[in-house]
Amino acid sequence: MTDTALSKVAIIGIGLIGASVALAARHRKSDCHIALYDRDEAVRKTAQGLNIGDEICADSAACVADADLVILAVPVGAMKAVMSKIKSHLKQGAIITDTGSTKRSVIRDIGPLIPDNCHLIAGHPLAGTEFSGPEAGFPSLFEGRYWLIIPGEAPQEKVSQLEQFLSALGAMTEQMDAEYHDRVLALTSHLPHLIAYTIVGTATDLEQDLKNDVIRFSASGFRDFTRIAASDPVMWRDVFINNDEAILEMLQRFNEDLSYLQRAIRWKEGDKLFELFSRTRDIRRSIIDAGQDS
Amino acid sequence: MTDTALSKVAIIGIGLIGASVALAARHRKSDCHIALYDRDEAVRKTAQGLNIGDEICADSAACVADADLVILAVPVGAMKAVMSKIKSHLKQGAIITDTGSTKRSVIRDIGPLIPDNCHLIAGHPLAGTEFSGPEAGFPSLFEGRYWLIIPGEAPQEKVSQLEQFLSALGAMTEQMDAEYHDRVLALTSHLPHLIAYTIVGTATDLEQDLKNDVIRFSASGFRDFTRIAASDPVMWRDVFINNDEAILEMLQRFNEDLSYLQRAIRWKEGDKLFELFSRTRDIRRSIIDAGQDS
Repeated sequence: MTDTALSKVAIIGIGLIGASVALAARHRKSDCHIALYDRDEAVRKTAQGLNIGDEICADSAACVADADLVILAVPVGAMKAVMSKIKSHLKQGAIITDTGSTKRSVIRDIGPLIPDNCHLIAGHPLAGTEFSGPEAGFPSLFEGRYWLIIPGEAPQEKVSQLEQFLSALGAMTEQMDAEYHDRVLALTSHLPHLIAYTIVGTATDLEQDLKNDVIRFSASGFRDFTRIAASDPVMWRDVFINNDEAILEMLQRFNEDLSYLQRAIRWKEGDKLFELFSRTRDIRRSIIDAGQDS
Repeated sequence: MTDTALSKVAIIGIGLIGASVALAARHRKSDCHIALYDRDEAVRKTAQGLNIGDEICADSAACVADADLVILAVPVGAMKAVMSKIKSHLKQGAIITDTGSTKRSVIRDIGPLIPDNCHLIAGHPLAGTEFSGPEAGFPSLFEGRYWLIIPGEAPQEKVSQLEQFLSALGAMTEQMDAEYHDRVLALTSHLPHLIAYTIVGTATDLEQDLKNDVIRFSASGFRDFTRIAASDPVMWRDVFINNDEAILEMLQRFNEDLSYLQRAIRWKEGDKLFELFSRTRDIRRSIIDAGQDS
């Protein structure tokens, strides 16, 4: 991998995503220097022990100094505070990107803080697991996965540099605007997580015997939901608060559709159920055809 | 494997479950004769081609004749019709079981048709995939999975014979009553499937561009839901119609909990979200501890 334009990359936040970026870059033999910072000292120590990246910095200013690319891999609710701390230490011409799941809020929060000579290109890797922290990182996390980017006002040359770096991690980049991103993700990711959290929460409120057996006999279905509902609570709290508009819109649609099925069950209208269940099979086939099924 | 008491087992319905029972029995070197029947001629031919079981019968009467154990592996809505056809051909002392996901309805539908000298022990293997048909069957489907049984009025000796056969397939049997079964499964399996069908249905109604991108960018979350929503439409239609009471009860609880979160998002009450998301993580840990996480 040669990204001659990027001789230093700074990663702020050493969680699943931040650690995986560093591991993927090294795995792919990137020749750029990877510096990482996390505000949690224990996390920094763990990252050091795991030998993630070239340098674990004790403060964010040192981490971003001279970096051609700064990647903010923190919960979306923390972006603004992080940006405030690093903004006066950025290299001229640096690209600032992030890995948050909501894009309008990140651009709203950090856009005004970006120095004139730096370039914000918000981003979002569609990759992750239910695990969190630096120990959860692994180098192949982005292989064959989409990494959505919001070019905004950034010069084409900078967008290309970022795309080249992300492609070298194994990701497929795709440009879109922030509003569209937030609507698509509200349905593909945010609403499913909300529902999974809800149903697992519903289970925790059952009488004790029933709850124990729900856990013991968690067949496929509930088991998958619990996996989703084990995701990082801070990250997801921030997502729901920051993409509220699009999520509430999709939730409204979902509620209408669920009421329709609820009524069909109550009135034993099997044909309505069968018709929907047949249609949903086709969507699954489309996803398999699109190569996004694993 | 020795189940001396069972010299012939009849399986009605050669789908994922029926085929897997036959494959598992052979794989475990069961010495009993396995006869299978499916009302669909194409399915019978496929099963023959796949060399499933010892005998593919052209009619259900021949299949169940002399069988010590009859397993009904058809959608729960079809149990009654199947039982009507076979009831006068059953061997004296035969055990009749099924593999349906609802237990009260099966007992209600076929209980009155069971001859006096035969024994109904309803059952439900907590195993399956989103695929269906005989090609989908595989011998390890039941390994380490629960197989719930409803002993009802059956003599202990017959219950033990059935449990011995199911254990030999790799399953862990567990006795419970039908009403309790239907409530537990309403939450662990039926409601998750209903929700998955709903959200995938919601996606199919989006504007075309957005729908295409929902499919392309189906991140974890939606992707898992589409897998669940690809399950057999007939089987699931029958489940919802036949466990309507318990499902509507759990759906009511779920709706209340979802409204609570919806309100928290609208009012940006991050603490309420965080509190729930932390609790749901613990449930996941319990499932992993219970060894039911894969």
